[in-house]
Amino acid sequence: MSLKITNVKVIATAPEGINLVAVKIETSEPGLYGVGCATFTQRHKAVVTAIEEYLKPFLIGKDPQRIEDIWKTAMVSSYWRNGPVLNNAVSGVDMALWDIKGKLAGMPLYQLFGGKCRDAVPAYIHADGKTIEHAIELVKDRVDAGWKEIRVQVGGYGGESNTMHRPERSTPGVYYDPQVYMDTMVETFEQLTTKFDSTINYCHDVHERLTPNQAIQFANRLEKFNLTFLEDALPPEQVMWFDHLRAHTKIPLAQGELFNNPNEWMTIIAKRYIDYLRLHVSQVGGITPVRKIIAFADAYGVQTAWHGPGDMTGIAHAVNTHLSISTPNFGIQEWSCSIKENTYKVFPGTPVVRNGYIYLNDQPGIGVDIDEEEAAKYPCHDNLPEWTLARLPDGTAARP
Amino acid sequence: MSLKITNVKVIATAPEGINLVAVKIETSEPGLYGVGCATFTQRHKAVVTAIEEYLKPFLIGKDPQRIEDIWKTAMVSSYWRNGPVLNNAVSGVDMALWDIKGKLAGMPLYQLFGGKCRDAVPAYIHADGKTIEHAIELVKDRVDAGWKEIRVQVGGYGGESNTMHRPERSTPGVYYDPQVYMDTMVETFEQLTTKFDSTINYCHDVHERLTPNQAIQFANRLEKFNLTFLEDALPPEQVMWFDHLRAHTKIPLAQGELFNNPNEWMTIIAKRYIDYLRLHVSQVGGITPVRKIIAFADAYGVQTAWHGPGDMTGIAHAVNTHLSISTPNFGIQEWSCSIKENTYKVFPGTPVVRNGYIYLNDQPGIGVDIDEEEAAKYPCHDNLPEWTLARLPDGTAARP
Amino acid sequence: MSLKITNVKVIATAPEGINLVAVKIETSEPGLYGVGCATFTQRHKAVVTAIEEYLKPFLIGKDPQRIEDIWKTAMVSSYWRNGPVLNNAVSGVDMALWDIKGKLAGMPLYQLFGGKCRDAVPAYIHADGKTIEHAIELVKDRVDAGWKEIRVQVGGYGGESNTMHRPERSTPGVYYDPQVYMDTMVETFEQLTTKFDSTINYCHDVHERLTPNQAIQFANRLEKFNLTFLEDALPPEQVMWFDHLRAHTKIPLAQGELFNNPNEWMTIIAKRYIDYLRLHVSQVGGITPVRKIIAFADAYGVQTAWHGPGDMTGIAHAVNTHLSISTPNFGIQEWSCSIKENTYKVFPGTPVVRNGYIYLNDQPGIGVDIDEEEAAKYPCHDNLPEWTLARLPDGTAARP
Amino acid sequence: MSLKITNVKVIATAPEGINLVAVKIETSEPGLYGVGCATFTQRHKAVVTAIEEYLKPFLIGKDPQRIEDIWKTAMVSSYWRNGPVLNNAVSGVDMALWDIKGKLAGMPLYQLFGGKCRDAVPAYIHADGKTIEHAIELVKDRVDAGWKEIRVQVGGYGGESNTMHRPERSTPGVYYDPQVYMDTMVETFEQLTTKFDSTINYCHDVHERLTPNQAIQFANRLEKFNLTFLEDALPPEQVMWFDHLRAHTKIPLAQGELFNNPNEWMTIIAKRYIDYLRLHVSQVGGITPVRKIIAFADAYGVQTAWHGPGDMTGIAHAVNTHLSISTPNFGIQEWSCSIKENTYKVFPGTPVVRNGYIYLNDQPGIGVDIDEEEAAKYPCHDNLPEWTLARLPDGTAARP
Repeated sequence: MSLKITNVKVIATAPEGINLVAVKIETSEPGLYGVGCATFTQRHKAVVTAIEEYLKPFLIGKDPQRIEDIWKTAMVSSYWRNGPVLNNAVSGVDMALWDIKGKLAGMPLYQLFGGKCRDAVPAYIHADGKTIEHAIELVKDRVDAGWKEIRVQVGGYGGESNTMHRPERSTPGVYYDPQVYMDTMVETFEQLTTKFDSTINYCHDVHERLTPNQAIQFANRLEKFNLTFLEDALPPEQVMWFDHLRAHTKIPLAQGELFNNPNEWMTIIAKRYIDYLRLHVSQVGGITPVRKIIAFADAYGVQTAWHGPGDMTGIAHAVNTHLSISTPNFGIQEWSCSIKENTYKVFPGTPVVRNGYIYLNDQPGIGVDIDEEEAAKYPCHDNLPEWTLARLPDGTAARP
Repeated sequence: MSLKITNVKVIATAPEGINLVAVKIETSEPGLYGVGCATFTQRHKAVVTAIEEYLKPFLIGKDPQRIEDIWKTAMVSSYWRNGPVLNNAVSGVDMALWDIKGKLAGMPLYQLFGGKCRDAVPAYIHADGKTIEHAIELVKDRVDAGWKEIRVQVGGYGGESNTMHRPERSTPGVYYDPQVYMDTMVETFEQLTTKFDSTINYCHDVHERLTPNQAIQFANRLEKFNLTFLEDALPPEQVMWFDHLRAHTKIPLAQGELFNNPNEWMTIIAKRYIDYLRLHVSQVGGITPVRKIIAFADAYGVQTAWHGPGDMTGIAHAVNTHLSISTPNFGIQEWSCSIKENTYKVFPGTPVVRNGYIYLNDQPGIGVDIDEEEAAKYPCHDNLPEWTLARLPDGTAARP
Repeated sequence: MSLKITNVKVIATAPEGINLVAVKIETSEPGLYGVGCATFTQRHKAVVTAIEEYLKPFLIGKDPQRIEDIWKTAMVSSYWRNGPVLNNAVSGVDMALWDIKGKLAGMPLYQLFGGKCRDAVPAYIHADGKTIEHAIELVKDRVDAGWKEIRVQVGGYGGESNTMHRPERSTPGVYYDPQVYMDTMVETFEQLTTKFDSTINYCHDVHERLTPNQAIQFANRLEKFNLTFLEDALPPEQVMWFDHLRAHTKIPLAQGELFNNPNEWMTIIAKRYIDYLRLHVSQVGGITPVRKIIAFADAYGVQTAWHGPGDMTGIAHAVNTHLSISTPNFGIQEWSCSIKENTYKVFPGTPVVRNGYIYLNDQPGIGVDIDEEEAAKYPCHDNLPEWTLARLPDGTAARP
Repeated sequence: MSLKITNVKVIATAPEGINLVAVKIETSEPGLYGVGCATFTQRHKAVVTAIEEYLKPFLIGKDPQRIEDIWKTAMVSSYWRNGPVLNNAVSGVDMALWDIKGKLAGMPLYQLFGGKCRDAVPAYIHADGKTIEHAIELVKDRVDAGWKEIRVQVGGYGGESNTMHRPERSTPGVYYDPQVYMDTMVETFEQLTTKFDSTINYCHDVHERLTPNQAIQFANRLEKFNLTFLEDALPPEQVMWFDHLRAHTKIPLAQGELFNNPNEWMTIIAKRYIDYLRLHVSQVGGITPVRKIIAFADAYGVQTAWHGPGDMTGIAHAVNTHLSISTPNFGIQEWSCSIKENTYKVFPGTPVVRNGYIYLNDQPGIGVDIDEEEAAKYPCHDNLPEWTLARLPDGTAARP
């Protein structure tokens, strides 16, 4: 009797306070199952609905080994496609199928992907200070913990400033002043590069909070600090501005966590507008599409730097790491401060970090499991993700 | 006391057997509400979740008159955006806010959009035959009913063929043979153009079921039939092939029902690769973004031909028509055979068609209401939308 | 004790009269070995030297599971790279390592590549007639054997013609007249499309024997025959002429068997100049690079049609088939008339063809073995491969 | 009786410890023979096989005066072409045929090429220090010996650094840290430009050991030192990155020793991405193709700077010099420290250097002979060329 998918379960959990969605696919072979990450934390319930109501009945009875065929038919089964809810839903399935594939093969996924290209995966960590002094303090903590690559922000992504010139009767919101933000970051890097030696490297995330021309100005001011990269200088709707940004700065550019659609990444890779592609793997639809995009980026000499924030399960961090360790054109990987004790309880097997390097275990498949009992101890919350609703001094809604 | 949103209701209903999703936004002004269409029939429950769990709490208490601000903050409140589930959810809200705006103004929407550019909206209707003979019969019916523009298909989008050379052990699926499909359509148009005079015009929808080169061949074979347009010759992931398609055919090209992302439509409009832009208004996020895209297309001399299938509420058909009647660079609008008696019961005010022209009523706002009691009589079904899972003769999953 | 490469053997054999080179990699695990194809028949001894003298000592002691790392270091260990001798040598190693990987996983390779995308692999076969009549006779034989796709040539690639206007004292060589060649092929397809119905499809290989402009003329004359593709209309040194060729014909174009270097294929895929990419897998360096190129071509909507001539081992035909069956953007695969009884003796497990479809066995890895005793019965010959040395009527050396 | 090739001999020898391959073509005219260089030191045995087994029987009996015809037919006689083993083999033949041509004419080759454009050929020499101090010392030696142009490297190409942050369980290899490498070179040039006056000029070879963006950063930091050129900033697979590199630096750029394929050099010359073309003449196939490439580069205003490392025979250094002295768009030529006493014994007639200028003798043909008895005293060794297998700190295999 041939192998079949017998059940698809969705596990929503918030071990570190962030809502996460995992998928578990069970098969007709007793004890053989796979797990995947479908986390789109800002709309996690819509993803749960999409999997339970549509992908589950679509999958039951199918052969879990035909991943490519399932990926494509699952994507087009909704006709409309390439968006964050459905891509994450399909990603949960796709990763779980690759987990099953690895278990059937008795191999960690990186072996199926061609074996290790490096011994461990170098990563960067965040130091998000409320003030410059706070950021420097956090950097010191990271350096003491063995980190060599640190993403530094002050005041989140732009930060609230007291110096803003605002009109009467302001709309409620989180305000920031682009000029203050830029000046603050330049000052921060001035101080950091004075206080720490050149073996410590930094990156910075604009988080799309500047106009294209401001991004050009800012990139130029940051050039002297030798950043590993400047991230998300532009929103995905305006990536054609890379033409001018690239022409006016030699700072390494990273982009991609917001991408869901092939038309977002194809041209900017093909034109070599970016140095680092920072996809959020589940947002693109999982391992199957990302493995192809890696090859595409390799042809163009673009390196990977997978998005690794707190709104990902330990499964997804492991998938990032399997991809990174087996990718020739890998650059660096993001690691989240939110990965703490509870993560390892709910997602046993989650990769560990020592001295700025991420290490995988060598279990077959993804190597991470879900402890459903533990997961149930940390139920999801119902808070709305309001944090991204930034506004400019005059009250204009800014991109996140 | 300033005007506020007090409630957001989602009404899911299937008056003609197709699952539809409508949104009703209530305000602090008694009796003032607006309605919008959020239908993504293939994943309608995920849209319902997105609105009820996220957009509803996001909206309550906000001023319904600040549509532009709400549209943008609603889009970026999920950080990841530009996909079918969330765009439809936002669209339901956006149309409802415009409906409120029209009611506040005491004007039908087309007046807010600058007034009528034409007296009524010319439309085309489908004739989807199982065989060539059947298609011709259906065309005759449409002609007799006063239609001058007819979209003709045989065997759905490609159709199952008995002549396929298939391998042993075939995967289950809906198979079609691209060569048989192309030959059948050429023969169909040969017969149609012989049987009906030149006052009857046709269009045809490839529905992305050909390779780019087959699309080029097919377009060339169809040129002599003087079609109004050839639709969806390419999938949204391959729109750059318009470069070659455009170079090799003078047939009018229409594209766009699948678009969710600005990167899908910007370049092909800017390069004038298409003659007709066929957006599905709710898939793009509603009236707010589409009004801008109309202006963009106008700058490039591209005409509109809004998608109008059965998987839209009467509200959306009315929105299409308000946009069409007030758009200088309008071309034609699609009309659905699924708009029957029940539609007018559930969505009173839905536009009517006479002799191939669509007519709006002149009520303020969209001019269409939702009769919630009637809607409740036609509950949604739970069938999976399997129809798109087409396969080529060798078993390859084809795009829908 | 970790797994290591313990031996690398080269087996040169000519079971069907064509010199072939296979590689067998043995490991520290008793009975665990892999096989690969390193055939560059025209210079097979140079490949043997490259493997035995350089790759063998390079590989012994290394972990056979780190394929990506071995591929890259083997390629750059010669500093100069991207050429036919060394790419084939590395290919033999690469395929053997993937064979080992599949055996370790207990899976046929197509499972590691994501599972089957189709039930079997449609293929085309050659009908190379000496005359038009002979070609038609051969096509009839193929059709009777169940083939639906046939490559038709008359007089090899251009053929020797009696009507040539040649100068005095001609240089010895194989002469052909481009005009006679083109006229002959047009006449051939006129007759074929009259004699056989439209379920039989044809392709044709220019084999680079025309000038770019002749290729344009020829492509236009062939358009009406609805060929599956026109192959190698240009030599690899002149692929930029696709710009003009593409602009002047809608005939499907296939290219790639001669490619060894990324700079040959990147631009023509990225510009969508071709419809079918026809790599010779071992000439590009094996499975590792080709899997990346498949992904690259998929992004651009280009389909694969792997080169499958007689100068390949059964191992390579199986590798082609594993790649084809797991590739979403697959089009068709070439199959050789030279695969006869001896092939199946020397390379047991070589795929089989029934009714124009290729079928793999489901053994782990590539699924093809080398019977070294049988191989020894068919030693390689020492004939020089003079056949490509074509000349134009005036004595000019033409490209092959 | 017309002149014919009667024998083709391959002489492999290592007079200075580096494996070299020379070709000697004998003719039907007693005493008339020619010599050429076919050195591809990393795979020299494969070149020997290619010549002895394939080119020798191909050539015997042919007229040595029809060089163009022989070059083309030899190249395409393997069908697959444009790679390092076969290009070197053909190069050995091609140079030997030009040597015969010159002897038949009674003229040094530069006369056949149009005569001298300059009186002698300016050259640069290497100073490869283990440390900055060592490099400065070596520069001083070169300056004292009359050199005005010096290529300076520290720690080979990147060098092993003690400050590397490496993971646990490192793969064996030669490690380097790109940041340390760049910092070291900037410091080196700071010191050099302080210690020596501006009559001493420098160049530097990145040897492809940086990412494209690092190359941009590095080029900018080096701009102030007024280098003659920065060499091989990009690998041949990524030459399209010159687009961005060129836009961001005005440093003179040199590239080309790795090129084997017309698609590698054509675009970057046509786009004027480089200032100096640094072909390795035998890797491109010898004098015949290089003379055409010189003309092509001249059309685009690009100058030549032929590769002249230790892994070339004295014959090849002489060929470089004949080309340089007769080329209007010549810039400079590389000269090797490995050319010592044994070179002049084995290859009598090898050019000599005085005060940074290379001088040819004025013998007919190339002007260099092979003393086969001397050559036999320095047999080739069997060491694998492991030197190129560089790794980044995390263990990633880097390009050479």
